[in-house]
Amino acid sequence: MATLICPEDHSPVADAEAIRKACKGWGTDEKTLISILGHRNATQRKIIRKTYEEMYNEHLVKRLESELSGHFEKAVYRWMLDEEERDAVILNVAIKEKPIPDYTSIIELSCIYSPQEFLGVKRAYQARYKHSVEEDLALHSTGELRKLLVFLVGIYRYAGDEIDARLAKSEADIMCNAIKSKEFNHEEIVRIITTRSKTQLRATLNRYKDDNGSSLTKHLRDGEAKAANAFLGALRTTIRCIINDPQLYYEKVIRRALMKSGTDEESVTRVIVSRAEKDLEVIKELFYKRNSVTLCHAVSKHTSGDYKSFLLALLGNQN
Amino acid sequence: MATLICPEDHSPVADAEAIRKACKGWGTDEKTLISILGHRNATQRKIIRKTYEEMYNEHLVKRLESELSGHFEKAVYRWMLDEEERDAVILNVAIKEKPIPDYTSIIELSCIYSPQEFLGVKRAYQARYKHSVEEDLALHSTGELRKLLVFLVGIYRYAGDEIDARLAKSEADIMCNAIKSKEFNHEEIVRIITTRSKTQLRATLNRYKDDNGSSLTKHLRDGEAKAANAFLGALRTTIRCIINDPQLYYEKVIRRALMKSGTDEESVTRVIVSRAEKDLEVIKELFYKRNSVTLCHAVSKHTSGDYKSFLLALLGNQN
Repeated sequence: MATLICPEDHSPVADAEAIRKACKGWGTDEKTLISILGHRNATQRKIIRKTYEEMYNEHLVKRLESELSGHFEKAVYRWMLDEEERDAVILNVAIKEKPIPDYTSIIELSCIYSPQEFLGVKRAYQARYKHSVEEDLALHSTGELRKLLVFLVGIYRYAGDEIDARLAKSEADIMCNAIKSKEFNHEEIVRIITTRSKTQLRATLNRYKDDNGSSLTKHLRDGEAKAANAFLGALRTTIRCIINDPQLYYEKVIRRALMKSGTDEESVTRVIVSRAEKDLEVIKELFYKRNSVTLCHAVSKHTSGDYKSFLLALLGNQN
Repeated sequence: MATLICPEDHSPVADAEAIRKACKGWGTDEKTLISILGHRNATQRKIIRKTYEEMYNEHLVKRLESELSGHFEKAVYRWMLDEEERDAVILNVAIKEKPIPDYTSIIELSCIYSPQEFLGVKRAYQARYKHSVEEDLALHSTGELRKLLVFLVGIYRYAGDEIDARLAKSEADIMCNAIKSKEFNHEEIVRIITTRSKTQLRATLNRYKDDNGSSLTKHLRDGEAKAANAFLGALRTTIRCIINDPQLYYEKVIRRALMKSGTDEESVTRVIVSRAEKDLEVIKELFYKRNSVTLCHAVSKHTSGDYKSFLLALLGNQN
């Protein structure tokens, strides 16, 4: 369930005119921009972009980029792109993060999306950057993390619902033996996590938990505490993205992003912009259940200015 | 240019009847089967399969499997499948080869086909085997070879024609330094070979040759001679599939398969069956130029029986 509230009827020409006016002269009328763009769905925004370009012979997204700044600019920019292009931008930003890629968004997209959906993002990435996701990712990472991430991004996972219980048992054993010998980066753990179908992997991880009393993620966390290792963090994120409902996963991302000292605006923007037209309503409910404050309240508290107003609009705030 | 000779008009019903008759009773009339199936294109074969099934309530490919045997059976079996399914079978057989996968066919398909074509094969594989190519391949391989092959099969290479000359220089240098330190399995060599676009990679490998006097494959071969290493063999095959014209590559495959002591029928069948409707005529010409005997003559000499007659039919032999 989406949170976005938008009128069924809108005039693309009137919208384009109002946006143009809001951008003209000294200063920008951000309120007007939010009142329009924060209440239009993907199709409507696409038509507005096109209408604006035809009317003023100017690229709307570029104009907005030059008018706005900071986190507000980034959020509007991502919001104005088509979904696959937006995800391509998110991937590119994450890949180029220093000193190592921000693996969270990369894993999120490659593990939560279906193979077919993610292929669309990879194609949008190629069209925009003239490189493949895999080649940029491999260039900006090394060693075990490189192997894990390139496998995740590359492998076209089988999406069927078959479960092989024997395989679940034997592969749970393989992982258990590796963990017992403290080989957290064991080649076979990476193989199983990156290549098996999600359904099969859930069965294997359940089996692991039944046989060992604790989950694999718990055991990996114990290893991580000792080694402070990006690879183990990435492996745990992968498992969370595969076994959890996406909404539960996103609730955790936005909770951490808002609650930590120094808000992580990049993650807040990513979740709200990406999910506002999909399942943000469910994420809001989960957030309230888990934190006893509403997501709108938490966003109000930890962000400010036009950025805050824009996020609240996407969250379905009526004002 | 194809070699297959087939009539524009054929009666699927008459074909199905003749095939049924050839299969009935004691013994099988292989000559009739070859005279029909060896002269029908992919669409015609598909219609024959369907017609046969409707008329006799029997799966034609399975019937042929039970009637025929040996290399002839394998060749007819592959020939009767749709192209993507045939490639999926070739992949599966190659992956399950012991003690390590037959990497040649895997590399061939993943590097010679376009990313889009290969995706079709991967989907056919999933539909048939209820697993992904990547998961079966990772299961049946280990270490460096696993990483190389899973990267090749997974990565959706950028297919654009841009060349970045600076990048070609810097990555040629990276590979050169690795080779000089005898690190033939250097992580960066694998990254460059598996992730860069074919066009960019050709520029990088040309640069390598210009700067070092010898090609990278030559240097890898020197390393391989010392180490007898499947990984290095696979890396060289990968480079050959990427830089050579496919027809030149296939000429070499079939030359080696026919000329070595103990013909490699698997490879002979693969090349002839897969290319008969595409570019086998060009491969025949290249074969003659390189070996001063015709491919038909070489096939006649190194194969026998119905298998030989069938291959010659696909090669465009009129008799």
